[in-house]
Amino acid sequence: MPSTSTSTAPRARILTGDTPSGKLHIGHWVGSLENRARLQDAYECYFLIANLHAFTTRADQPSEIARDTLEILKDWLAAGIDPERATVVVQSEVPAITELTWHLSMLLPFNRVMRNPTLKDELDVKGLGDKYSFGFPLYAVGQCADILTFRPALVPVGEDQLAHIEMCREVARRFNHTYCGVDPATPDAEHVAAGGLLPIPEGLVGRVGRLVGVDGTQKMSKSLGNAIYLTDTTAQIKKKVAQIYTGRVDTNAPGDTNNALFQYVRSFITDPARVAELEDRYRRGDAIGDGHVKVEVAAAIDALLAPMRERRARFDAPGREDILHDIIRTHSARANTAAAETLGRVREAMKLRFVR
Amino acid sequence: MPSTSTSTAPRARILTGDTPSGKLHIGHWVGSLENRARLQDAYECYFLIANLHAFTTRADQPSEIARDTLEILKDWLAAGIDPERATVVVQSEVPAITELTWHLSMLLPFNRVMRNPTLKDELDVKGLGDKYSFGFPLYAVGQCADILTFRPALVPVGEDQLAHIEMCREVARRFNHTYCGVDPATPDAEHVAAGGLLPIPEGLVGRVGRLVGVDGTQKMSKSLGNAIYLTDTTAQIKKKVAQIYTGRVDTNAPGDTNNALFQYVRSFITDPARVAELEDRYRRGDAIGDGHVKVEVAAAIDALLAPMRERRARFDAPGREDILHDIIRTHSARANTAAAETLGRVREAMKLRFVR
Repeated sequence: MPSTSTSTAPRARILTGDTPSGKLHIGHWVGSLENRARLQDAYECYFLIANLHAFTTRADQPSEIARDTLEILKDWLAAGIDPERATVVVQSEVPAITELTWHLSMLLPFNRVMRNPTLKDELDVKGLGDKYSFGFPLYAVGQCADILTFRPALVPVGEDQLAHIEMCREVARRFNHTYCGVDPATPDAEHVAAGGLLPIPEGLVGRVGRLVGVDGTQKMSKSLGNAIYLTDTTAQIKKKVAQIYTGRVDTNAPGDTNNALFQYVRSFITDPARVAELEDRYRRGDAIGDGHVKVEVAAAIDALLAPMRERRARFDAPGREDILHDIIRTHSARANTAAAETLGRVREAMKLRFVR
Repeated sequence: MPSTSTSTAPRARILTGDTPSGKLHIGHWVGSLENRARLQDAYECYFLIANLHAFTTRADQPSEIARDTLEILKDWLAAGIDPERATVVVQSEVPAITELTWHLSMLLPFNRVMRNPTLKDELDVKGLGDKYSFGFPLYAVGQCADILTFRPALVPVGEDQLAHIEMCREVARRFNHTYCGVDPATPDAEHVAAGGLLPIPEGLVGRVGRLVGVDGTQKMSKSLGNAIYLTDTTAQIKKKVAQIYTGRVDTNAPGDTNNALFQYVRSFITDPARVAELEDRYRRGDAIGDGHVKVEVAAAIDALLAPMRERRARFDAPGREDILHDIIRTHSARANTAAAETLGRVREAMKLRFVR
């Protein structure tokens, strides 16, 4: 009699997340959130709210960080992160991450951490000059630990975070080499089979690495005031999209489909045939005004955000914060179970088991 | 009727410790161990074996660090640290220390950590040049967390560690100011009364800050091969003391009581009258040879170490390692209870309580 077992192979694991710095916007959606919502079925997903990282530049604002931490959770749930399928990790609830940070810092050369290009960019962007905390470079090591604590196969990130992922891959290799006897020449994909504790994770960049803001020039960002938030109303969306500057005025003038407006067309209008038609008519200047395109873009963004607003209403009403705390409690327990398994094995590998 | 209550005020708390780097020597004894053994009754003592710090320069030697960790514990017990009175903390068993390290690193300016003179000296002494791990400067922050996790009033240390203590005091003040609303102008001793979570600890230097080695010139140190170990036999002690070079040959020549030999006389001969007599005759060159003084010094050191050898024999026999593991297990539980109380209050102060 043939076997009829329906074997379910374990799903590969994903870890990614955000540092709480305020409300999320549609740049976050196309850069990563959309990816996350889509990946929940095929992968075992851990989504990290990196609230401890927020202290690197705002250590004197603990209340604001606490508020922003809940804000991110609401944005995620509204955007379709499903607490029944994915695990939400509030970083401060999983102290094993800080323990692994310490261990990994011993394996990373100081100059390697300080020369991390992402770190240098962030110092520039945030205008920190040489006034920053020791926690600032530490957070680059902390990001490696955020990831490796959960031993994921894939890490969906923004383009600007790829340098961090590269350092994470480097330190994972070094850990496996130093403490698990893995030959340094072992290909990344074979580290675990060769006895390594830490899989070498792969970065995965979203479909739009960098969405331009409604100012039409700079990357969409809360601090630049050029963002459309996931919580914006229909009227706010219309008003903001109308601001996108292209410089084109004549509806019959040939237009440049590489402009900011058409990045929005391609990012948010979901019917490929309609996208192709708009591009074609715009290029040719076939009686199509920017105002008209903007109306269609605003409608497409509104169609994306409407179900988010609806989901959010369920837990954003006064007195419904319990729902959020329940999720954090149950998910933290799951996350700590996964983290304890990793750290138990880390300590074993590092000969740090004095108590059994 | 007068009250006859015998109130017992809580004893002030002490934290200090060693990084495992091999066997302890009599320089450690006069620098700090002696202090610790003496302080056990009057204070609630936590003695830390900083095994995670050992990875800053020996991350590739986990087995050696594990061995040295047990070695330190044996040296301590032999030297009279009493597991019934003091709590021995194996650092890796108290991960809350790494969590507090992370939080404190956010409050310490990067340049402040890097300019710590103790850190710079250690880079020089260890010949690390610019080849060191990120964990190397992190360990300066980690030392602050080692201490503050246990909220001690006093920290007995070697002279060379005073700069670390100063940074620890600084970050404790800043924590209390940032997260507990303590006015920065508050005197150190009043921080806790003013609502601060962390007492500002005081450093306490042992009676001999720097014992010279048997080479007669450099500080006693394992790596310089000029040390008398706590485990040395009577014969080894005699031989090593005999090596102490003074340059004096004539028993009737006036001698310099500031030389290395007389540092030993004052450090180890316990009868003050005899010390005074030897100093007087040596200064005057009153028929007293260096050889004779060395015999008395060796006898004094042997008298100090004999009971240590005896105590050590109880748990250093093959198969007696269980005693050590039992101590680590029960003491780690005590240490984790104290650490959990601190970290619970740290999280409360930092608004990091999402789960209750």
